[in-house]
Amino acid sequence: MNVEVIATAQQVTEAQVKGKTVIVIDVLRATSVMVTALNNGAKGVVPVLEAKEAFIVKDSTSEAVVLGGERHAEPIDGFDHGNSPLAYSKQVIEDKLLVMTTTNGTLAIHNSLSASELLIASFLNDKAVVDRIKERSDLVLVCSGNNGLYTLEDALCAGRIIYLLQKSVKLRLSDLALSVYALYKAHKDNIPEIAAQGYHYKVLMQKGYQHDLTHCFKSGLYSNVPIWNGQCIVNL
Amino acid sequence: MNVEVIATAQQVTEAQVKGKTVIVIDVLRATSVMVTALNNGAKGVVPVLEAKEAFIVKDSTSEAVVLGGERHAEPIDGFDHGNSPLAYSKQVIEDKLLVMTTTNGTLAIHNSLSASELLIASFLNDKAVVDRIKERSDLVLVCSGNNGLYTLEDALCAGRIIYLLQKSVKLRLSDLALSVYALYKAHKDNIPEIAAQGYHYKVLMQKGYQHDLTHCFKSGLYSNVPIWNGQCIVNL
Repeated sequence: MNVEVIATAQQVTEAQVKGKTVIVIDVLRATSVMVTALNNGAKGVVPVLEAKEAFIVKDSTSEAVVLGGERHAEPIDGFDHGNSPLAYSKQVIEDKLLVMTTTNGTLAIHNSLSASELLIASFLNDKAVVDRIKERSDLVLVCSGNNGLYTLEDALCAGRIIYLLQKSVKLRLSDLALSVYALYKAHKDNIPEIAAQGYHYKVLMQKGYQHDLTHCFKSGLYSNVPIWNGQCIVNL
Repeated sequence: MNVEVIATAQQVTEAQVKGKTVIVIDVLRATSVMVTALNNGAKGVVPVLEAKEAFIVKDSTSEAVVLGGERHAEPIDGFDHGNSPLAYSKQVIEDKLLVMTTTNGTLAIHNSLSASELLIASFLNDKAVVDRIKERSDLVLVCSGNNGLYTLEDALCAGRIIYLLQKSVKLRLSDLALSVYALYKAHKDNIPEIAAQGYHYKVLMQKGYQHDLTHCFKSGLYSNVPIWNGQCIVNL
């Protein structure tokens, strides 16, 4: 399997993802929210780029909708919830459609839509995603990054996926794939501690999201594999 | 010391480098050429973005000029030499001005000119550069990359510089700095072998540049520290 890693949502080009299996990663926190919400019974997740689009989607569907997301890590005016995975409990999200916009994760998804198969990963569902893709020939791991910058937590999660894959699949790793794999292996026994040195992690800690931070690094907590079905993200 | 790493020439912004100590790295092969040529007595290196600029510089100076560089790893029509550090022997370059254009390295330098201090590094002069910058407070390592993509060899060299620095300086590493440091530490005893897995390395190997590849990973071979003096790059 050929494995490429892209460092930020902004760097994704159609040429890099078209016709390939793409896994979008935004550990802090968009894909952790999506995996959690779908695990807790959300009917689907609709990623949109702008808050105003979210209101339009809500007005145009007969489904029960929850609006979620953030700008600069803060909740959005008029939205039901922010970008905290712990907010999306079964009570809040079961049988509802989550319409979501975030700074990085939804952009990464939007820029990856020409993939042949677009999956959503976080530490929470790492093993389930890896089990799903072992037979692929070309894999692109799209790290969402943070406002166009490389982020440690997404690199660690990409490295974790490569680490799990290489146990049973022969891999040909790109330069960045080799690097995030080395990063993960160097710190695999202390992921929360190394992640805590990351810029974005520190910002969220300062803003009081320590419970989210603990949640987002729980490897293998869930077994759902969210996939883009052409209209929204649903569990496989 | 705060240490940031930028992955490609294209990603360098004035805001990131202005007023800081910047080290430009292009292991394969621009900065390896510059370090080698200056070690072998070049009077200076003038980095230009386009081949036609190189001819203009040559016509406008009374200095003896050698034109060097590449496009897509190949020599340029009308130039004296390509981008092979081994071509810049004492016989070829002593007391001459090297006017140089390459795909990535000269762009990285051009985009970093607002630095307070702009140094040129490769594996060849890693220790000398590190000795020079130990007292700085803000350091930016600019990896030139390859046509806008992250490259393994530049990341390894940036990691090497961080590794040497952290032996005597307390560092605050950015997310990418933490990552290239982990990459370097994981492979520090087999740098040529891991570098050989990189895309750009393989391209150069296929083109027959194996002697360059051996040369470019000789850590600490030279002790010169090239610096931008406002007009060209000279030895400190």
